[in-house]
Amino acid sequence: MDYISTHQIKPGDKVDLKSIETKSRGSFDDKDDAKAFTAKTNDAIRDLQYRMFVEGKQSLLVVLQAPDAAGKDGLIRKVLGQMNPQGCRTYPFKVPSKEEAAHDFLWRIHKAAPAKGKVSVFNRSHYEDVLVVRVEDLVPKKVWSKRYEIINHFEANLAAAGTRILKFYLHISPEEQLERFGKRLENPEKHWKLNTGDYAARKKWGDYRQAYEQAIEECSTDHAPWFVIPADHKWYRDASVAGIVHQTLKDMNPQMPPVDVDLDEVRALYERELAK
Amino acid sequence: MDYISTHQIKPGDKVDLKSIETKSRGSFDDKDDAKAFTAKTNDAIRDLQYRMFVEGKQSLLVVLQAPDAAGKDGLIRKVLGQMNPQGCRTYPFKVPSKEEAAHDFLWRIHKAAPAKGKVSVFNRSHYEDVLVVRVEDLVPKKVWSKRYEIINHFEANLAAAGTRILKFYLHISPEEQLERFGKRLENPEKHWKLNTGDYAARKKWGDYRQAYEQAIEECSTDHAPWFVIPADHKWYRDASVAGIVHQTLKDMNPQMPPVDVDLDEVRALYERELAK
Repeated sequence: MDYISTHQIKPGDKVDLKSIETKSRGSFDDKDDAKAFTAKTNDAIRDLQYRMFVEGKQSLLVVLQAPDAAGKDGLIRKVLGQMNPQGCRTYPFKVPSKEEAAHDFLWRIHKAAPAKGKVSVFNRSHYEDVLVVRVEDLVPKKVWSKRYEIINHFEANLAAAGTRILKFYLHISPEEQLERFGKRLENPEKHWKLNTGDYAARKKWGDYRQAYEQAIEECSTDHAPWFVIPADHKWYRDASVAGIVHQTLKDMNPQMPPVDVDLDEVRALYERELAK
Repeated sequence: MDYISTHQIKPGDKVDLKSIETKSRGSFDDKDDAKAFTAKTNDAIRDLQYRMFVEGKQSLLVVLQAPDAAGKDGLIRKVLGQMNPQGCRTYPFKVPSKEEAAHDFLWRIHKAAPAKGKVSVFNRSHYEDVLVVRVEDLVPKKVWSKRYEIINHFEANLAAAGTRILKFYLHISPEEQLERFGKRLENPEKHWKLNTGDYAARKKWGDYRQAYEQAIEECSTDHAPWFVIPADHKWYRDASVAGIVHQTLKDMNPQMPPVDVDLDEVRALYERELAK
């Protein structure tokens, strides 16, 4: 299955999240079928990540955005965090620190951009600055409304330097979210995640949806596409994101670099040691 | 098996690496037995790491040092990198950058110290500044010889702030190293790792051993112990380090924090949403 073309929002597409399904099962027979695909795909991703690391010319940036309980943490645990940690880092972006807030909104983001050969995974991102900031009225419209263009230019700069950018919106239904909130209540190990603010955000579901739709429409570019991932089934969320990352790395086609030592010389040194 | 007491160098111990075996099999029947133990222990580590993350009071620093081909990368892939990446980062310390070299040797190290709730894994570390720097004569003895005490004070400061420190020396024999170099020669995918410098370092094996012995003797403290890990068998290396990390996390005994929301209030909000 071509997960990229299935879930990518093309530049110029109108986005109506209500009309995009949250419960897709793709072409999987069942959960186990999807999990087997994800495991196999994770292995293939690791192999390509290794090549990209050794090649040292390209990099990958994965941006995750989602309503609460949509599964960013699970996706990191089961897919993105399965990459070799020596070449992959996750960055959570929470409420800005005092120092961060004293700079433009991209300052802290830019510092976390992946170096050549590396992968960065953003758990939340600069998109919060046109999402929560907009819905909760933290800055005036004349400020946030200019940020779409600023973001596109920023991402174009990263892309021009050899960074592939994949942006995932994990799309869950309010019903599924509520069910997950219920499960948190049942499980004392999850009580630390409880928050009355979660319910306040649900009241603004429509406002957030609108903000997401505009962000995705304005900022899904050829060099930094957005993907809307059906996320009511965790196993489909994991499998489709793994599929997209895998297709992307294959397309990047990282190559082992030419050997820059004299193999005969190394072989001679080896033989000499062996003979000792 | 108590991997801590088996492999820990106690403060005041004399270290004679030649007399410490490199081929230990511990109490494992075979490789598969050890691998099953490591897999099970990795799960237990992840569970405790999650608690430490949520607790947010303590942190863990793992330092890895070893001769080339002793398996730091493999150990990270198979054990330390199995932790949840949202709470664990690996830091490679290579030849210092111009900016790093313009500061004291601990400056770049300190920046990578783990925050509360987090784990840092150092792939090489500040110990290079009493190892390669000493053997290759990069700074005068009167400079490096003062660093043991500086390191002990630095690590004591981290420990006082709630950081547990585990330092592993992966102990391989020169014969096993040569065998691994040979395998690199046979495998074109590994040719990028080849390096004539590896053979130059082998000529100084004795000097490096002495430098390691002194570093371990001077800096194995109660608050930051060194462990000498028999590393000729990769599976024993992985199993014993997993065992030590696991025992340490159990001893740190991280606790889920008390719930700071009103559970009844959250439950009422949940019920109200459910009834809609």
